[in-house]
Amino acid sequence: MPKQTSYARLPTSAVEDWTRILGREFIQTDSEQLGAAETATFGTQQRIAAILRPGTLADVQACLRAANRYGTPVYPISSGKNWGYGSRVPPADGCVLLDLSRLNRIVDFSEELGFVTVEPGVTQRQLYEFLKQRNSRLWMDATGSSPECSLIGNAMERGFGHTPYGDHAAQVCGLQVVLADGEVIETGSASFAGSLAAAAHRWGVGPSLDGLFSQSNLGVVTRMTVWLMPEPEAFAAFFFRVEDPHGLPALIDSLRELRMREVLRSSIHIGNDYKVLGGLQQYPWNETNGQTPLGPETMAHSRKDLSFGYWNASGGLYGTPALVTEAKRMLRKALNGQRGKLKFLSPRTLLLAKRFAGPFRMLTGWDMRRTVELVEPVLGLMRGVPTEQTLGSSYWRKRGPASAHTDPDRDRCGLLWYAPVSAAEGAQVERLTSIATDTLLRSGFEPMISLTMLTPRNVYCVVSITYDRDVAGEDEKAMACYEELSARCMENGYYPYRLGIQGMGHVPRSDAYGGLLRRLKNAADPNRVIAPGRYED
Amino acid sequence: MPKQTSYARLPTSAVEDWTRILGREFIQTDSEQLGAAETATFGTQQRIAAILRPGTLADVQACLRAANRYGTPVYPISSGKNWGYGSRVPPADGCVLLDLSRLNRIVDFSEELGFVTVEPGVTQRQLYEFLKQRNSRLWMDATGSSPECSLIGNAMERGFGHTPYGDHAAQVCGLQVVLADGEVIETGSASFAGSLAAAAHRWGVGPSLDGLFSQSNLGVVTRMTVWLMPEPEAFAAFFFRVEDPHGLPALIDSLRELRMREVLRSSIHIGNDYKVLGGLQQYPWNETNGQTPLGPETMAHSRKDLSFGYWNASGGLYGTPALVTEAKRMLRKALNGQRGKLKFLSPRTLLLAKRFAGPFRMLTGWDMRRTVELVEPVLGLMRGVPTEQTLGSSYWRKRGPASAHTDPDRDRCGLLWYAPVSAAEGAQVERLTSIATDTLLRSGFEPMISLTMLTPRNVYCVVSITYDRDVAGEDEKAMACYEELSARCMENGYYPYRLGIQGMGHVPRSDAYGGLLRRLKNAADPNRVIAPGRYED
Repeated sequence: MPKQTSYARLPTSAVEDWTRILGREFIQTDSEQLGAAETATFGTQQRIAAILRPGTLADVQACLRAANRYGTPVYPISSGKNWGYGSRVPPADGCVLLDLSRLNRIVDFSEELGFVTVEPGVTQRQLYEFLKQRNSRLWMDATGSSPECSLIGNAMERGFGHTPYGDHAAQVCGLQVVLADGEVIETGSASFAGSLAAAAHRWGVGPSLDGLFSQSNLGVVTRMTVWLMPEPEAFAAFFFRVEDPHGLPALIDSLRELRMREVLRSSIHIGNDYKVLGGLQQYPWNETNGQTPLGPETMAHSRKDLSFGYWNASGGLYGTPALVTEAKRMLRKALNGQRGKLKFLSPRTLLLAKRFAGPFRMLTGWDMRRTVELVEPVLGLMRGVPTEQTLGSSYWRKRGPASAHTDPDRDRCGLLWYAPVSAAEGAQVERLTSIATDTLLRSGFEPMISLTMLTPRNVYCVVSITYDRDVAGEDEKAMACYEELSARCMENGYYPYRLGIQGMGHVPRSDAYGGLLRRLKNAADPNRVIAPGRYED
Repeated sequence: MPKQTSYARLPTSAVEDWTRILGREFIQTDSEQLGAAETATFGTQQRIAAILRPGTLADVQACLRAANRYGTPVYPISSGKNWGYGSRVPPADGCVLLDLSRLNRIVDFSEELGFVTVEPGVTQRQLYEFLKQRNSRLWMDATGSSPECSLIGNAMERGFGHTPYGDHAAQVCGLQVVLADGEVIETGSASFAGSLAAAAHRWGVGPSLDGLFSQSNLGVVTRMTVWLMPEPEAFAAFFFRVEDPHGLPALIDSLRELRMREVLRSSIHIGNDYKVLGGLQQYPWNETNGQTPLGPETMAHSRKDLSFGYWNASGGLYGTPALVTEAKRMLRKALNGQRGKLKFLSPRTLLLAKRFAGPFRMLTGWDMRRTVELVEPVLGLMRGVPTEQTLGSSYWRKRGPASAHTDPDRDRCGLLWYAPVSAAEGAQVERLTSIATDTLLRSGFEPMISLTMLTPRNVYCVVSITYDRDVAGEDEKAMACYEELSARCMENGYYPYRLGIQGMGHVPRSDAYGGLLRRLKNAADPNRVIAPGRYED
């Protein structure tokens, strides 16, 4: 039975205004569409009053002016693929969804300076195709989610990818933002009329405002310039499989050193055994006789059978052939003495491996067949190719296979992400992963953990609580696990890099800091019209 | 005759409060001290009412609370060495100077994670000595001004240096800020009590506020964490002398390509002939019979005599020996075909050159003797060693030699800096330097221009208007030249990266952007107590 919508609660005049602005076609109020938008990958109660689908900047301005006039809260989404963090569901009840996906133009582009200017509806796939069609020598940086994810949506959540441009918020050079009163500003050097350095110089003059509009509710971002990296002459990937159950701290410390020295210049991704298994297959219901969580014996068997380690690191090497060769040498030297296997892989080797998996195994002793399935999209991500592969893991605990057209919200996949940050120090990262592993196993979930060494000094840890929403009671159990995990991490000094709607309001701030944030919100949006509750205490 | 102070205009109760807070010793109101603080390297009219010298964070809080209570404007300075941009002089009249130089502790440091946390009084020299005493393998990034410059002062003006960590604001990871009401906040991950990633993860959660406090008057920065780079295994410098008067655009385009590919990872510095000459000597009054500006014939003679080019580029190469060798190869390849001379120099070669300048010339044909004087501090800056060398150029037009203890304010050196940004495109940079050269020569000043390729995509251009304040009418002439230069640059799309007090209020903003800035200021500092006029329209 569809939920009852809160459409009725909207001021009639607001609906009339929006209808006049957008046309009947682009305002949705029927219960089926609203119900779908009210569905995330975990239990939520928030209702959505209507969905507005502006097609132009002027539409967005007019919609916000009307919302501001009637005091109706509006929740902007770009592609709405915020899985694990709330999908399209707003943190507050009764919002109108401002769906920006029709603003999908690539507005500007430079091959020489390496940048692109996009609207919120521009997806990873769209930019990837755009660059391919132009025979561009520039690479995008893709986040490991769906190709249909919005570039702006991901960057404004400060999401990340796998090339040297992996810290997405750090590559942003200028935003166009609509404020609650409908006024439009541009940030950085773009704030000056006719500036020739708009896409080159992010700071502008005076206070730099870019940071204000990421993970925030101070404005609606309608345009973003983001830098793109030039395709390197040479590329290779490295893979290191940790065969010592206590080998993580030494690995982190070695890799930090190489990141600090810029021998390694991209994000390094490290998945634990559960994470790798979840990427390769669904839950082994048969082998476990339906018992959850997956125990240590089954996992040991899988590690051996599928050739992965306790921890599994991968990263790209970029540059001229000589630079890549030197990076390999340094990596070999740094990991020498650590129990594990270091492998290098070029796209050409992968191609060969796919063709000659059998003979390859005979020659090298490395079973490529299953690994190739997992490795190919990883190698793609390191070169800015979006993948759908990672999405599959949200079906881990489902009884049936994922449908061809995956949709975790619709298919009632259970997924809660918690993403604490650690300094890139082995002992600290080890402690964090222990807390996560312990909390999840005790709650009956598999601790799928990925670590991303995004910058030389920090590690983003993403813990997935993956379950089946069709199993009664699991929504509540998973949320309790999330809350325990979040509380234990913060007590121990690990705070998240990003929050889902399930975590907003739970991060402790000093009174002074909270007070300043409230005053800034009041300055930008006095009627609290934009995304109330989003990243607010 | 000393100027009349505006001390009398202060509310008596405010002075009493500050005296109670700081003690009589740390509030200065005598006309000599105030007069010195009211003196910049160009003509100013602003009076300073008193100088407060807090010694602790609590002092700063209490001083601001009092100022806020009485509505007395306060202008914070760190070391006050903001030469060319206004020194210690506030943009508004009647401010109380909040001199933070007594807060000079190095509060935290990590060799492994490569960071240091400093107070505003910590100077470049102090950090350099600190690292040396600890036998640290970390390098600081020094700006090419005095060793007595404050690290916080420079970073909050978004100043720059010469190593791969040259974009100072980009290396900041967390600020401690006192707001106008005396409340203290910390930004980024440091905003959370007990965060283990405070010095590693700059974004924190929610809106990122760091950008709000650089080039701003929204708070008083009392602490900053900044990243330090690990000393590389190998280092070499390159020098390229452009011998084609039209060779700049090709050079910029080649270097941009190498910066984009991260073959070159540090700022590249490019000085024109006037800039190099100004670094080597004072104005050649004898050779020119006292005529100004320095004409093309004299300059041609100097270029030949002192072995420098129309443009003179230099930068560092960092990494393992193999990486440095590869960078040299790429640089040779990129500059091949451009009329000029490429030289590489290691610290060891420089040492040899100093000892055997004569024989060296015979062997290589390169006259090192005069060059070494200029080159040595440049090589130092590339390795994070602060230098006093660059300060000397502010005495360019003085008739007598610089005193041993240089002080451009006291010695009535005339210096106005205007610092427009260009995208790193040869034709754009060429056009900007033409505007600057033309404007300065027509106004009777030598166009000393430095270009810093700070990031792969932009170029900071610093134009020095250098003169002698003891020559009647020059203050006015120089300021008229500054205003013409500023107007012409902005008309043509070149906006400054930074402003001195002489330029604040002249940068055009959209109404919407200006309005937002005013609302943010009002939210943070409703009584407009902190640095009124600073980076405001």
